[in-house]
Parts: sequence; structure tokens; C-alpha cells
Amino acid sequence: MKIEIPREVERFGPIVFHGVQKVYELDAGLRNAKNDKDDNPIMKRIAYDTQHEIQKQMAIVVPIRNEKIKLIEGVLSGIPHHCLIIIVSNSPRYPMDRYKLEKDAIEHMEHFMDRDFLIVHQKDPKLGEACAAAGYTHLLDKNGVVKDGKAEGMILSKMLAYICGKKYIGFIDSDNYFPGAVMEYVHEYGAGFTMSNSDYTMVRISWHSKPKVVESNLFFAKRGRASEHTNRILNRLISSFTGYGTETIKTGNAGEHAMTMDLAMKLDYSSGYSIEPYHYINVLEKFGGIIANPSEDVMNQQVEFFQIESRNPHLHEVKGDQHVKDMSKAAMECIYNSPICPDALKENIMEDLVTRKILPKGEKIGNTLRYYPALENFDLRKFKEVLKNQEYAGLFKAKLPEFKETKVSKPIRDTKLAKESVLPEKGKLEMK
Amino acid sequence: MKIEIPREVERFGPIVFHGVQKVYELDAGLRNAKNDKDDNPIMKRIAYDTQHEIQKQMAIVVPIRNEKIKLIEGVLSGIPHHCLIIIVSNSPRYPMDRYKLEKDAIEHMEHFMDRDFLIVHQKDPKLGEACAAAGYTHLLDKNGVVKDGKAEGMILSKMLAYICGKKYIGFIDSDNYFPGAVMEYVHEYGAGFTMSNSDYTMVRISWHSKPKVVESNLFFAKRGRASEHTNRILNRLISSFTGYGTETIKTGNAGEHAMTMDLAMKLDYSSGYSIEPYHYINVLEKFGGIIANPSEDVMNQQVEFFQIESRNPHLHEVKGDQHVKDMSKAAMECIYNSPICPDALKENIMEDLVTRKILPKGEKIGNTLRYYPALENFDLRKFKEVLKNQEYAGLFKAKLPEFKETKVSKPIRDTKLAKESVLPEKGKLEMK
Repeated sequence: MKIEIPREVERFGPIVFHGVQKVYELDAGLRNAKNDKDDNPIMKRIAYDTQHEIQKQMAIVVPIRNEKIKLIEGVLSGIPHHCLIIIVSNSPRYPMDRYKLEKDAIEHMEHFMDRDFLIVHQKDPKLGEACAAAGYTHLLDKNGVVKDGKAEGMILSKMLAYICGKKYIGFIDSDNYFPGAVMEYVHEYGAGFTMSNSDYTMVRISWHSKPKVVESNLFFAKRGRASEHTNRILNRLISSFTGYGTETIKTGNAGEHAMTMDLAMKLDYSSGYSIEPYHYINVLEKFGGIIANPSEDVMNQQVEFFQIESRNPHLHEVKGDQHVKDMSKAAMECIYNSPICPDALKENIMEDLVTRKILPKGEKIGNTLRYYPALENFDLRKFKEVLKNQEYAGLFKAKLPEFKETKVSKPIRDTKLAKESVLPEKGKLEMK
Repeated sequence: MKIEIPREVERFGPIVFHGVQKVYELDAGLRNAKNDKDDNPIMKRIAYDTQHEIQKQMAIVVPIRNEKIKLIEGVLSGIPHHCLIIIVSNSPRYPMDRYKLEKDAIEHMEHFMDRDFLIVHQKDPKLGEACAAAGYTHLLDKNGVVKDGKAEGMILSKMLAYICGKKYIGFIDSDNYFPGAVMEYVHEYGAGFTMSNSDYTMVRISWHSKPKVVESNLFFAKRGRASEHTNRILNRLISSFTGYGTETIKTGNAGEHAMTMDLAMKLDYSSGYSIEPYHYINVLEKFGGIIANPSEDVMNQQVEFFQIESRNPHLHEVKGDQHVKDMSKAAMECIYNSPICPDALKENIMEDLVTRKILPKGEKIGNTLRYYPALENFDLRKFKEVLKNQEYAGLFKAKLPEFKETKVSKPIRDTKLAKESVLPEKGKLEMK
């Protein structure tokens, strides 16, 4: 892969937001191959062997729920062989056992692909038991199984990737029609990790375009409607602290994203469609120097966000208008309710929601999201122990470190610190 | 790439038609990587390093004519870095110089990609002069420049690839919306060449599906209408000699195809949309043992056809119904008029054309196509000599062998041998 270096960089305390980077070549050859005519200071070449090294340490998570089997097969064929694929299904098991169908189809593919899949059902009681053993009951419903929701499945997959000993974790939606796009995303995750200097790195994909059927033709829209909205508000949030307007954030809702496991273990998560925008918010809450600076190592290494524009358009199953509104609303709620959201931005958000007819005039935004505390403060050795006789336990290759009990088991937004903190005045952030 | 071995093989004298092969993984890692759990006798893994070796010896030709620049940029970004890209444009130069626009855009990309492009205009008088010097006047119009037509541009590109010293040549349409699909095709070309035992090999892509807009939704059709028709007739042609019905040919109209330069130099070509189906016909004419067996080396090595089913759907610019009919008609004409077409099949073809309303009842099929003789019988050293001062001449790296003058300068169908040959009776082919 050949990719330009970021043109813009936004710094916020120890957080680095890199501007969107454009990909020039999907396949740039091997490391030792004669390649560039001369040194090109603005381009970065990520050789295939470098990608390969990263893929061996990467888990790719594919959350599924009722997608067509053919679609899933395509997605799986696009994931490079040396990544570990983790499939978390939340498809119904009654009246027809969809999950069984999925598992059968994937095990059939396994014969041909000769690779390992870790496939689980989100509601498997054993997984609930394992979460409980680790003390991570936040994820469980009253029956002791993992709650419904894509975000919940993603958090579960992070625990699984951790005990598999993976260094990186990436997410791929299962409704993508183009396996070639899937492969591109994984290579872009690898490109981001290669360019980063920090163990706390996130890579987010900005789609090249999103083809839509408009009057029997295809129209290639640059960005989805929900994304435009989320990006605008996130950028305003940043500029209200730095005092400089910015348009750097272009991947507020990026379903396609990857991160280092070190970062994955440190983040709080929110539920529903807000999980992706909340990554930005939570990093600002935790490491932005506004209300807290919890980890010395993060302060030293920085947190790096890469945003990479894919070359392939993103063609996926159409979900309709209500889906767009739900996404927007969830994103706005998690920003609005964050302890770092200034009052002026809250007003902006409310105006937008009313103008876009997502919220009736006069109604409040509510507090409907769930928040999940960082996994690093829970004992995942116990999680692993409960699952040791499962058929996929052979994949749990991590040598887990000694667990140090801490008292931190809440998301940062629920801590005393967050509740009592006073936001700095506009443009007066100390660490900027 | 991980690909199944062919399930079916159809043999026809020294010609081997492999059945369609399915791709299971787009990216299967490096050669020495630990990979398969155990030996899998029906799967073939083509490691990235193997692909890389082939790409260094491969020219990828992108014929363009008025495509949107953005579309072309995407296609180019999908072609692996180590392939030589040859662009043959036949875009109009007046009133607006479209070719200049294209060349500017591509040279702009060159700054970022750091790679070589060989870009020419089909009507460049210097190219006409070079063809004339080689004695290949068949390609020229009365003004001494190369004739219009995609087939003519493709033949020209073969001459250019030959003097660049490439071992393989592949074709990619410039109206593909998905760079990831382009990259997949190139990797499939590489897979075919790796699996082959012969210097005379062709790889043809069978699209996974072709998304169409149907009532504001996407429908994934398995095969285009023209292809179905062409495949059926080609299969009947084969079975009328072997005496066994077959459905092996699925890539009669494959615009996406690649071949060894050794084979490219030996084939006669036909004009227009018939160039792709005529590859099959011409190989049967020349090497099928029906009317002639001209080359001992081909007889020994065999000619191998691989058909690979891409994982990515093929999403390209829509060309409409007339285009489908034109394609069908051209394909049928080149089969009908071949000296190896049995009378019974001619009747089939006529019935089909009338039923499908491509030809009015009672009308004859005509003889509208042009045929071009094999390039191996022309002196391409002289072609190279004329172009030695062109800006792209640095790419002409072939050490061309001494040229042996022959008397063969006609397509095989125009030779006395073809005209006088009597077709064997049904199912009575000697070499089958």
C-alpha cells in the first residue's frame, strides 16, 4: 500500500488527530523490491511483508446478525489469511436456529480456507458466566447473559481477542458486498499501525464514497448524512477547547476501525450506534487533560488517531432513513452528556437535532445510553478460566499478566472527578 | 490468494480448458508463512511473493475512451505497483483535447505513485509509422494511423508490451468502480500463470456477479445476457467435435483476461466485441487439430485456459441494451464464419439470433469483422526502431531476437488450408 502522510495534524494534549490520508496504491510490493524512482518525502510505502507481520498479530472481528450467508462468505474471503477472525453472532436461535446455519456455513468454508475461526453466539450462557467471573457484570442482562446490541458484542470480542494474545483488533461490518474493500480496510489498519509511534493507536476508515441508487442510477455520495453531522459536532467540541476552528475529524461514525489492544483495554465504551463517536469523546475525557490524566504511559506515548480514506467505495445493505436518524441521535447524546461538553455546544446540538427533525421542539435529549468501564480493571484471567473447555479454547494463546486489583470499576464519566470538574474557559485549555 | 483446483477439465487436442475455479481467500500470506493446518489436495495457495515475481514481468493494459478521470484514477490505484501500466487512449482530441486531460491527470498521479506509465494515443501518427515499418499495415487506416476500435488498441498494446520485454500481458477495463476488484483480477492473472505448466496460457475472469439496479435496489445477476449466449454456443462448438456435451466455457466474453506474451504473439485477432470470444475460436482453429497444427512447441506444451471466478462483484458503467445485442452479434459472427463451425451449429446460431431479435428473420449474418494475423510473423524490431526517440522509449527493455522472415502473413482463416479443409464428422475428431 502506498499512502500519503497526513496533511494536517490536530494536537490536543497528548492526543494526536491525524487528518485524512489518501491511498495511492493498494499494492506496493515487497519491502526489498526496487520501487520508488526517488525518495518521496510525502508518501509512505507499507510493504506487503510489513502488513503480513501486523496481520499475524491482529484479530478481525465480524459482528453478525441476520446477514445473508452469501454476504458473510464474501466478507470472510476478503480478510487476509493470517488474521484471526472472531465472529460474534447475535442472530436469533428460534424459531429457526440462524446461528447454527451461520456456523455450519463458516465451518464449511474452513475446510477450504484452512484457517481458524473463533465463532461464538453473544447469548451463550458460558460467555455470560465468564464475564461474571471477571467481575464484568456490566455487560450482562438480568438472566446473566450478555446484553443485546452490537456495541456489547464488540466489547465481548475485545475480551476474546485479549485472551487470544492479539496485539491489534479491527472491526469489519458483515454487510459489505465487496471482499476487495474488506481486504483494503485490513491493509489500511496495518498501514496506520505501521505509521504510529504509540502503543495507543486507533485507525478509522473514511469511505471514499457511498454509492446510492438514485433514479435507477448510481450516485457516489462523499459522506453519509449521519457522519457529516457527527463530524461537525466533534470538530466543534475540539475547537471549543483549542480556540482554533478545525475540520480534521472526518470519521466520527467509522464502523470500520481498528485499535491496539493496549488502547482497547483502556477505553470506556458506550452502547448502540454511539460506540464509534464515543471513542473520540472518551479519549478526550480520559487523556485530554480536561478532567483527568490517568495514565503516565499514555501521557508519554501519546494517543494517535489515523483516518484513512479507502480507495474502494462502500457498498453495503441499505438500512433506510430511520437508521440514519438513530445514528445521529445516539452520537449527539453521547457528546451532549459528556462531562466535557461545554454549554455552548449543548445548545448547538439541540438546535441541530430540532432542525433535522430528529427531536421534537422542546423535548430533551435524554440519557438512554449505557456506558461500560475499561476492561483493564477486570480480571480476564478468570474470564479465560471459565472458557477453558470450549471448542475454541485452543486459540487462547495469551500469557496473561498478573492482575493488579484496582478500585476503578466505573466509566470515567461516572466518577467523582468528572462530576465535580469545571471545564476550562473557551480556548483556555492548559495542555493544548 | 487461495483458490480451488479446477473441478473439470475439457481436453481438445493439445488445448486444455480448465473449468471455473473459485477463490476462497484474496490474501493468503507469504510463501514461507505457516499457513495450512494440513495439506489440502484440492486447494492451491498462491503466496504474495509468487504474485510479486509475476507482476514484475507483467504489463497491465488499460484501454480508455472518454471514461471519467476519477474512474480511471481509481482503476490505476488498484494495479499492483510492480506491473507496468500501458494506457492506450482513443479519446477524441477535438474540440476539447480529452487525451491531454487524461495524460495530465495520470502524470499528476505519477508524482505520488512513483511508477512508470506508458501512455499513448491510438491515433498517434508515429505509432502508425512504426506499425508500417514492421509490415503490420493491417492495423492501419487509409491515413496510415491505427484504426479506431478497442480490439485495435489492444493489439497495439501487445506490440508495446512485447518490446518492453514483458512475459505476461493482462487487460483491465477502465470503467470499474472498485479498485479492489481491479487488484483482485491482477492477482487472479498471477494465480493462473502460477498454476500453468505451459508458456501458452490464458487466464479469463468470470465475474462473481454483476450488480444491477432493479427497482431502486441492487440485484446481483450471476452472468450477463451476452455472456450466457456466447458461452452456450462455444460449448456446443466444442461438444460437436468431442461428442460429449459440456458446460465448461463460462468466460466467452471475458473482457478481463491475461495471457503469456508467447501466446499473444501467436494468435490471430478479430475486431470489435468479438476479440474475446475469438480467442477461443482461434486457438481451436490453429491448434485444435481440426484444420492445422502449426507449431510443434505448442503441441508439446499445450495451450492452457484458466477461468477464475472473482470474489468481487463487477460494478461498472452501464452501457444499455444495444451494447448487449452488439456484443452477442459480434460473438456469433466470429463463430459462424469460422472455418471450423459445423453446419448444424450455424443453424443453431441463426435460430438464436432470430429468437433473441438480434437479427430479422431471413437476414444473413454477414461478414463485418476484420481479422488480424499473428504478430510473431512481423518484424517488431523495426516497430521499436521507429519509436526509439519517443518519451517512453526508456521502457523498451526487450532484447529482441533475430527476426526470421516467414511467408505467413494471413490469419489462418484466410489460408488455403482453412478454406479447403473438410470438418471431421460429429464426434470423430482424431485428436480428442
